[in-house]
Amino acid sequence: MNYKMVLFIIGRILKIEAVLLLLPAMISIFYKESNTLRAFLIPAAITLIIGIVISFRKPKKSAIFAREGFTVVALSWILLSLLGALPFYLSKSIPSYIDCIFETVSGFTTTGSSILTNIEALPLSILFWRSFTHWIGGMGILVFVLAILPQHNNQSMYLMRAEVPGPTVGKLVSKIGLTARILYAIYVLMTIIEIILLIIGGMPIFDSVVHSFGTAGTGGFAIKNISIAAYDSAYLQYIIAIFMILFGINFNMFYFLLMRKFLQVFKSEELRCYLAIIAVSTIIISINTYSIYENFSDSFRHAFFQVSSIITTTGYATTDFNNWPLLSKCILVALMFFGACAGSTGGGIKISRIIILFKTGINEIRQTFSPKSVHTIKFDGKPVETAVSRGIYSFFIVYMMILAISILLISFDNFDFTTTTTAVISCINNIGPGLEHVGPMGNFADFSPFAKLVLSFDMLAGRLEIFPIFVLFYPKIWMHKKKLLS
Amino acid sequence: MNYKMVLFIIGRILKIEAVLLLLPAMISIFYKESNTLRAFLIPAAITLIIGIVISFRKPKKSAIFAREGFTVVALSWILLSLLGALPFYLSKSIPSYIDCIFETVSGFTTTGSSILTNIEALPLSILFWRSFTHWIGGMGILVFVLAILPQHNNQSMYLMRAEVPGPTVGKLVSKIGLTARILYAIYVLMTIIEIILLIIGGMPIFDSVVHSFGTAGTGGFAIKNISIAAYDSAYLQYIIAIFMILFGINFNMFYFLLMRKFLQVFKSEELRCYLAIIAVSTIIISINTYSIYENFSDSFRHAFFQVSSIITTTGYATTDFNNWPLLSKCILVALMFFGACAGSTGGGIKISRIIILFKTGINEIRQTFSPKSVHTIKFDGKPVETAVSRGIYSFFIVYMMILAISILLISFDNFDFTTTTTAVISCINNIGPGLEHVGPMGNFADFSPFAKLVLSFDMLAGRLEIFPIFVLFYPKIWMHKKKLLS
Repeated sequence: MNYKMVLFIIGRILKIEAVLLLLPAMISIFYKESNTLRAFLIPAAITLIIGIVISFRKPKKSAIFAREGFTVVALSWILLSLLGALPFYLSKSIPSYIDCIFETVSGFTTTGSSILTNIEALPLSILFWRSFTHWIGGMGILVFVLAILPQHNNQSMYLMRAEVPGPTVGKLVSKIGLTARILYAIYVLMTIIEIILLIIGGMPIFDSVVHSFGTAGTGGFAIKNISIAAYDSAYLQYIIAIFMILFGINFNMFYFLLMRKFLQVFKSEELRCYLAIIAVSTIIISINTYSIYENFSDSFRHAFFQVSSIITTTGYATTDFNNWPLLSKCILVALMFFGACAGSTGGGIKISRIIILFKTGINEIRQTFSPKSVHTIKFDGKPVETAVSRGIYSFFIVYMMILAISILLISFDNFDFTTTTTAVISCINNIGPGLEHVGPMGNFADFSPFAKLVLSFDMLAGRLEIFPIFVLFYPKIWMHKKKLLS
Repeated sequence: MNYKMVLFIIGRILKIEAVLLLLPAMISIFYKESNTLRAFLIPAAITLIIGIVISFRKPKKSAIFAREGFTVVALSWILLSLLGALPFYLSKSIPSYIDCIFETVSGFTTTGSSILTNIEALPLSILFWRSFTHWIGGMGILVFVLAILPQHNNQSMYLMRAEVPGPTVGKLVSKIGLTARILYAIYVLMTIIEIILLIIGGMPIFDSVVHSFGTAGTGGFAIKNISIAAYDSAYLQYIIAIFMILFGINFNMFYFLLMRKFLQVFKSEELRCYLAIIAVSTIIISINTYSIYENFSDSFRHAFFQVSSIITTTGYATTDFNNWPLLSKCILVALMFFGACAGSTGGGIKISRIIILFKTGINEIRQTFSPKSVHTIKFDGKPVETAVSRGIYSFFIVYMMILAISILLISFDNFDFTTTTTAVISCINNIGPGLEHVGPMGNFADFSPFAKLVLSFDMLAGRLEIFPIFVLFYPKIWMHKKKLLS
């Protein structure tokens, strides 16, 4: 393991976080919240100093591989969260540091689960930082590093692979740095368009910015206690719903559109399946909830918004779906597992993995009755490579293991069964709300500190796609016991 | 596909069911329940006639393979249930035929979920038949066929493999027929010992017999509304608990004991893991529920009984675990998934599969950080064959698919989330009770006919280990379209 290089990259990431912390500091000055300014400048200074110290000199041996990639990603996300939690703590917005960590992990991982009982009481600069963590975490801070720093060598692919969601990572262009820059350009552009469209619809500028951050990162932190339900405008709700769907699409698709490769977009099995699931779920739920709302246009709007919010793992709400009939709630829980498309900012298992798992299942049933014939599983018209399908099975198994163990650990808190299971499902899939106590109008405040740490782990595991986070449990890996590893 | 042979074997099975129906008829005569006698004799006659007609002449080509094995198993279990439901219907014990099917499927699959609201109102002969279906289903009626009929050829292995639970089937001795007879001898002997021990403890003879049937088949139908809680004797409850554990052990172990191959029993990884899980779960639950019961001996007894009942997928209860703290309930739900040992009469995923899935998970995590080193997964000290592990992954994927789809279908009934999910979990794992409405003191009466059919499908899918039951959806297979299959 190339420890020096791992530290060097983490150092660079911390320096960037220090710079990013200056943005909410400026908001603090702008809104004359003098008491929060300190809360950003002190963490910025600490982060900067640590960053400078550990990345002081570039190591001569700059080669890194998958193992280093995973280690950098896991450690940097944990460090970012621990340091990013400081503004909440120093500004006294959140008194308990465990709660600050939960809120920050929830932000960076774009989960959107909150321990706040009264969001509206927070200073604007703190609310800005809270939503800004979604925007930073959505595309991935490592991708950001790759985009703005001169790339060392082609092995930066290992960093990208460890951070970008999905079973496979496609390079758009031959150079990783350029790929990362293109992705970021699309990300920034789409965020700006959403901000403008929201302002046109009458949403205040500050609200438009932070909600667009939450949409872009598929995070879901709102600045009102009742989330997007606070904006009683069909236009605003549809704009946010549509942008949630857009940010749940593999970003490569937007690049293909820009390159006028329309056929490649149209042929994407994942995209078609994603849109079909949204359509079918919306229709079923709008019929199922028709009796609750006054008319079909309302039930359709709420169904469409909630389906878009949950499948993209954003977590905004325009209504309390806790009061919906069970069928609609179960569809939402199923969508929590599905998640958005690979290569998007969304979480969950990802539509492409679900498609391949489903096809594997059907295939195995067929094979039972006709063992001689060999069926290969195809995705996007091409046979799925063994390495990819094996990766998906192992992802699924470890994912279910974490889910089961987490539910057992959270059950110590003795909430009801629904709250406990959906809290874990929501966190590991980076959604935000669950059902009952953790429903869209509820929060995670009442969980014990232990449960909050377990859920923070789940959020990180989900965002980093399960495997990298286990670096925490493999001290062998980051200690000098090379013999055990190679 | 050798259709003639499939029909011939099913015919033989039906003839056996006809004979088995005479046993409750005798009970009916013994207890002078003249109005139920007809309810057994008519189905016996119908079953016998169908059986004779379709197995009139032995086909010349008697060769069968895996496909025929699965088809025979699936179709015979469905036919057995449809015909075995008739006594409930004809005796007017259960007015709706859908309910009769649910109760019979629950019996044969050794699930033990019931739609009865007042069990004690039923005639004794009907209660006997209800519990007797557990005993028949526990070891498998096909194994019975193999045991008593002259075996055609070695291909009867395909029948056994399709019916006996577990990822692999070991032949104890070279001949399948003899293996089946040894298994049945152990099964009968252990049932008799339990009956005697219960009678010694003061349980009435009839109660001892039917409860031993329910224990042996790991079924769980009781004849009292409050299950085994009706017998307020620590001795009786411990006897039943211990026998549940015994019937959850791979029957090969008992054969090894008889053969004095003690080392092979001691070395069994599955057995040690099974006993360890029971021990750990019992200890945690007895501490967790200490505050509910008056003293530790009570909380230990209830914990031990419920853990044994759920892990073996029996479903008897001595207390309403619905009122336990969430941690204890979640442990029970986890045990529902685990199930008993392969090659036992129990359901669930099976401990050996869980061990291999768990080891796969750990292995994949290790491989993330040291991709070069190849770790092989070992079970019982031997490397797991690729075919076996692939079989387990595909089992797990299809199992989770059925679970998810069933929950969505059952959610139409609009019960609460906990009732709905645990009803499906309980049925697919052949447990019996779930939580809330379907808790140990509740029942499945209030579900819609559609939901009852879905749950019946789940029970069959669980008992037949997922794959064979899909013969229902593959009409291609049992129609003459050979081209599609070979």
